[in-house]
Amino acid sequence: MKEISGGVCAPKGFRAGGIWSGIKTGSRKRDLALIYSEKSCAAAAVFTTNRVKAACVLVSREHISGGKLRAVIANSGNANACTGEAGMAAARRMAELAADEFAISPKEVAVASTGVIGVPLPVAAIESGVSSLAASLRSDGAGHEAALEAIMTTDTRKKGGAVEVVLDGVPVRIGAMVKGSGMIHPSMATMLGFITTDAAISPAMLDAALRRAVRRSFNRVTVDGDTSTNDTVIIMANGEAGNSPLAGGGPLFETFVLALEDLCVSLARAMARDGEGATKLVTVTVGGAESEDAAETLAKSAASSSLVKAACFGADANWGRILCAMGYAGVPFDPEKTSIGFASAAGEISVFKDGAPVPFSEDLAKKILSEDEIEIRINAGSNKPGGSAVVWGCDLTYDYVKINGDYRS
Amino acid sequence: MKEISGGVCAPKGFRAGGIWSGIKTGSRKRDLALIYSEKSCAAAAVFTTNRVKAACVLVSREHISGGKLRAVIANSGNANACTGEAGMAAARRMAELAADEFAISPKEVAVASTGVIGVPLPVAAIESGVSSLAASLRSDGAGHEAALEAIMTTDTRKKGGAVEVVLDGVPVRIGAMVKGSGMIHPSMATMLGFITTDAAISPAMLDAALRRAVRRSFNRVTVDGDTSTNDTVIIMANGEAGNSPLAGGGPLFETFVLALEDLCVSLARAMARDGEGATKLVTVTVGGAESEDAAETLAKSAASSSLVKAACFGADANWGRILCAMGYAGVPFDPEKTSIGFASAAGEISVFKDGAPVPFSEDLAKKILSEDEIEIRINAGSNKPGGSAVVWGCDLTYDYVKINGDYRS
Repeated sequence: MKEISGGVCAPKGFRAGGIWSGIKTGSRKRDLALIYSEKSCAAAAVFTTNRVKAACVLVSREHISGGKLRAVIANSGNANACTGEAGMAAARRMAELAADEFAISPKEVAVASTGVIGVPLPVAAIESGVSSLAASLRSDGAGHEAALEAIMTTDTRKKGGAVEVVLDGVPVRIGAMVKGSGMIHPSMATMLGFITTDAAISPAMLDAALRRAVRRSFNRVTVDGDTSTNDTVIIMANGEAGNSPLAGGGPLFETFVLALEDLCVSLARAMARDGEGATKLVTVTVGGAESEDAAETLAKSAASSSLVKAACFGADANWGRILCAMGYAGVPFDPEKTSIGFASAAGEISVFKDGAPVPFSEDLAKKILSEDEIEIRINAGSNKPGGSAVVWGCDLTYDYVKINGDYRS
Repeated sequence: MKEISGGVCAPKGFRAGGIWSGIKTGSRKRDLALIYSEKSCAAAAVFTTNRVKAACVLVSREHISGGKLRAVIANSGNANACTGEAGMAAARRMAELAADEFAISPKEVAVASTGVIGVPLPVAAIESGVSSLAASLRSDGAGHEAALEAIMTTDTRKKGGAVEVVLDGVPVRIGAMVKGSGMIHPSMATMLGFITTDAAISPAMLDAALRRAVRRSFNRVTVDGDTSTNDTVIIMANGEAGNSPLAGGGPLFETFVLALEDLCVSLARAMARDGEGATKLVTVTVGGAESEDAAETLAKSAASSSLVKAACFGADANWGRILCAMGYAGVPFDPEKTSIGFASAAGEISVFKDGAPVPFSEDLAKKILSEDEIEIRINAGSNKPGGSAVVWGCDLTYDYVKINGDYRS
């Protein structure tokens, strides 16, 4: 497997673009994105678990239910959430507008929105912009970049990538873009992710592959504990690579899943790194838990704790807060057998071993925790196999408060 | 029922005091508190639900198991948590030192600690200070104040009070002090609460009264979502008021519980108001939920959301974040029937009604939310009786990050 350029346009047969249509009123930043496949695609998606679901989520869920898609149209600047019947009509209209450009069925178009909640989606902006958007689509990296910019809100970095993997001699490509920096939590809050691949794969296997990859990537990112109304990750596979179709499990399918997971993990890390106001990527690794799920729960509890996050901001080796966060995670583990350490490019240090504090150099700890990528290493003391997980988060900073203290204005 | 002065010394037969013993090394602020009853007391307590429990919690739980106490000794500046066998020995020694001063059994003494986790408790400081502490005890408000100061950490305000209620012609008093400002969550994290009463009441009924009062007060406070290793609320009742003993349910018991709950609620509000870095008390009231528990869960989810808290700091009427936080709370409710409003001394405003946004004056909303006590009013749309709850939280501010970015140094 190798990294390649081009993002969602790296796989054969996909075009993408993004324009400013006027949904974002404060600036002329791009706000409307389109990804289009020349051929019909197998498609799969995962959506928010929030009981309050945005109109775009409801419409996309319906459109993707048959496992087929041709295009995704997405906007930033407005979430089209909590907008009632008018919001549903707007989401349907958005799909219809994109479909009309290519003379395809609206059912072949997924829609996604991100931005402020509760404000009517200005459909007129989309109506007036969609034709120039469709005309602007490109099959190279510039198309990917334009689309990616158009789904960004408080994101400070572009988060996209592509990989190529060889399946039985046939090169297959996977490309992706994501947005998300605030309101991100394990259950994928306010993140949008669009993934393209030229693999030939059945909708059912594509769905299985996506769920496995998302479980160990986007669902293990936590920024602030909030789970949004709009989360959506969509994958489309058009079969243009010409591999023998992945219609069941087996080694080739596993290779495909690993490549997809790898790409998603790199974007999940990038999302945590770009958490609102974050100055540091905080990776929490837990081993020695009772199960992978227990490890994930313990890691998320530590990574989500405001006190742990503030300590990371202050480069404070405050393992007591980590142990405390594990203690209220709600899964069993033995504090008496637990060990905690920190690591970064500046070195590694053990601060708590087998249930007891270890004398350590505060200077070294400070140095390690002052890096912009730091790791909290936890061993929960069990011998059970498979009890490990990795979760990505970030520190809690003044800027997080600033960004979210007045988001709407 | 009326408010009275004197705090934990208001009920007859209690003395209290606090000194600086040297546990806090950065300053000469009081760090060791003692509350003592001349007569044996019925006693009850609630402790942290964290799987990681401080040594003082384990020792106090053991001592209180018989339902009797004479004294509480508590220190700030060191949590005596995650300190292993040495920590257990230190907690036992602390009880013993207090017991020796009054020639009572160590089993009649509860211990409590708050402060930094994982550092050995400096028992020598307590050994050298306990005699002058015992000698300093007073039965008036000054004793209460000194003890209260000695249990404070990052608290910026003293939180104590007392009430008097007449039971069948006999005045009965209840006094209390609490500390807690950070690491506070619904399950009562890093809070210490000591309550005295001269009521005559059986240990079993005292336990029942305490649990009812705590449920609707301290367990409905949330500051940062963390649940500490040390939470402890202890009540001691010495019977000195001379009322006919409350040994079963009935109207007099109910009157007593309401007075206790009222006192606890006022201190719970004070804790939320004094949340680390908080500039505002945020009260979340939920009505129209499926049950009281469901209402509490919805209210806590809104009050705990970092995004909602940051919006309160910014005086931003961002109801979308509130609805979103309700959506991931994990209890059923109907967003289509939900209404949300804000209120404060500056007025009240409806922003979301029966599932749809209501046009509202941003200026008025800003004015309402700029007060230092604000209320978020939610109606979850159900007709079920009893589906309401009140939760107290605070805003998320720059200072929260500052305080917790470098607590240990």
